[in-house]
Amino acid sequence: MSQFEQVTVLTKANIYFEGKVTSRTVVFADGTKKTLGIMLPGEYEFGTDTKEIMEIQAGELKVLLPGASEWLEINGTGEFTVPKGEKFKLDVRSATDYICSYIQE
Amino acid sequence: MSQFEQVTVLTKANIYFEGKVTSRTVVFADGTKKTLGIMLPGEYEFGTDTKEIMEIQAGELKVLLPGASEWLEINGTGEFTVPKGEKFKLDVRSATDYICSYIQE
Repeated sequence: MSQFEQVTVLTKANIYFEGKVTSRTVVFADGTKKTLGIMLPGEYEFGTDTKEIMEIQAGELKVLLPGASEWLEINGTGEFTVPKGEKFKLDVRSATDYICSYIQE
Repeated sequence: MSQFEQVTVLTKANIYFEGKVTSRTVVFADGTKKTLGIMLPGEYEFGTDTKEIMEIQAGELKVLLPGASEWLEINGTGEFTVPKGEKFKLDVRSATDYICSYIQE
């Protein structure tokens, strides 16, 4: 089973959209940060403060990346990257389990 | 900020009730286990495999403990304990952030 070892986890959740999007912050020994999150069905727009790599562990959703004219569709697992300082849209169809990595460049 | 240090976190979420209740499993160096969870509004019944201590970090909910005739009300923070092998009911009114500790006896 996949796991993160020797990490620090913040006990308080990050809660967005009245709880339809929530995540937990994990800090690694080298200071890098990821969140483990859940998105419930709905349409959302997010902005990025750093480059973000979103790994979908399970779920059904569509993603509109910055500058894209076509939606990317993920059913099951998938991954996409969003540059720093951009916005992206999500159309989530089923409970989606994700890992978001924040990349300082 | 409260945090758990030098722990292992399973990357895959525990998902119940179509995602209205989700949690992440945290394993400590001594082998003990907690989950960090979110419950969205709804009515739920859970059973316990071990004694469980539920710490509510934020939320509004009512709890019917096993054998109790009156509901316990929590608005904000609170804590309750459920013995092993029992069932309890929750009536969650707002997105609720909890820590559940599993106590092996």
